[in-house]
Amino acid sequence: MEIKERIIKKSKELFFRYGVKSVTMDDIAHDLGISKKTIYQNFNDKDEIVYQVMLMELEDDKCQYMHLSEVTKNVIEKLIKMSDLLRLHIANMNPCTVFDIKRYYPRSWDLFRKHKKDFILEQITNELREGIAEGLIRSEINLDVLALLRLEQVELAFNDEIFPPEKFNILDIQLEFLDHFTRGVMTEEGLKIYNQYKNQQKHDK
Amino acid sequence: MEIKERIIKKSKELFFRYGVKSVTMDDIAHDLGISKKTIYQNFNDKDEIVYQVMLMELEDDKCQYMHLSEVTKNVIEKLIKMSDLLRLHIANMNPCTVFDIKRYYPRSWDLFRKHKKDFILEQITNELREGIAEGLIRSEINLDVLALLRLEQVELAFNDEIFPPEKFNILDIQLEFLDHFTRGVMTEEGLKIYNQYKNQQKHDK
Repeated sequence: MEIKERIIKKSKELFFRYGVKSVTMDDIAHDLGISKKTIYQNFNDKDEIVYQVMLMELEDDKCQYMHLSEVTKNVIEKLIKMSDLLRLHIANMNPCTVFDIKRYYPRSWDLFRKHKKDFILEQITNELREGIAEGLIRSEINLDVLALLRLEQVELAFNDEIFPPEKFNILDIQLEFLDHFTRGVMTEEGLKIYNQYKNQQKHDK
Repeated sequence: MEIKERIIKKSKELFFRYGVKSVTMDDIAHDLGISKKTIYQNFNDKDEIVYQVMLMELEDDKCQYMHLSEVTKNVIEKLIKMSDLLRLHIANMNPCTVFDIKRYYPRSWDLFRKHKKDFILEQITNELREGIAEGLIRSEINLDVLALLRLEQVELAFNDEIFPPEKFNILDIQLEFLDHFTRGVMTEEGLKIYNQYKNQQKHDK
């Protein structure tokens, strides 16, 4: 692996474990067994590292999502698998990671927001359309309004004024939002299948 | 009616029809057939009028809500009647009213946010508890998380960056949010009753 890529991967690992603020360039250099000078030969500053980590993370996200679309046979299965992915992604992430980026790395946060507005909104809209075509999602929903609602929920869970981290767990919030959103758009048939998958998911754990 | 109350009521009427920014002290005086001096004898400035209108509106809100709790026999009936109230309240309101207050009258907007945090959150929490006790709302929900989600939806509908008014109608958004939220928390039994009420509501219109 190229040194630049190694620095990004290690930084991501440290950021996810400890948050962004508390990880120094020294920490990253030390953990990789390289000098700080090597890092500065590849990145101007920490802001640039954070930005590259975010870029990589969003690319991963897209990739995993595309894969999900290929291996699932209906919208409900996709939503269930998405909640598994969320669990995997967020369970081991220090909530400070998101709060730090939101507060101190606006360039990277903007990147996430752009990803949200472009890629995520398109995916949500497609899912809802597919679900309606499959008879699993109610055709009467106001698709544009609910797609935007779902999109905002993703960010709302990271709002620590509304959900203070000493009282709420981000993963719990995200999973509750996804479950509630899904139930709210389902047809009777959709709900039946969703509950079956949910029970299966519980047994698999 | 006292002159102070008449000024507040007329201002409210004009604000709801034309927005807040575009209504001048002259308009209010002219519509009441009084002099601008009389207004300034009762209010320091427009900011104070807006504040008093907001106070009155929130008191009305509380009062109507309390009444609703008395005349409905279960949580679903209450939610259906609430959507009727929303329709009545918002249908004839110029969306600029809310946008103007949010942007130019922070003291009044804070009053609304306080009302939201205290009164509305308590009502939502109570409704969810009642519904669970009645077997109409799923007992597995994360009550605190979903109560806060519902609370934020009220304000989200007024976010004109997310829902630009040239593309979305605030009433449509609020009703869609309420309907979706309700369906997402219901038990099978609850959904059955909810759909019956909804059909009834459609026929009544």
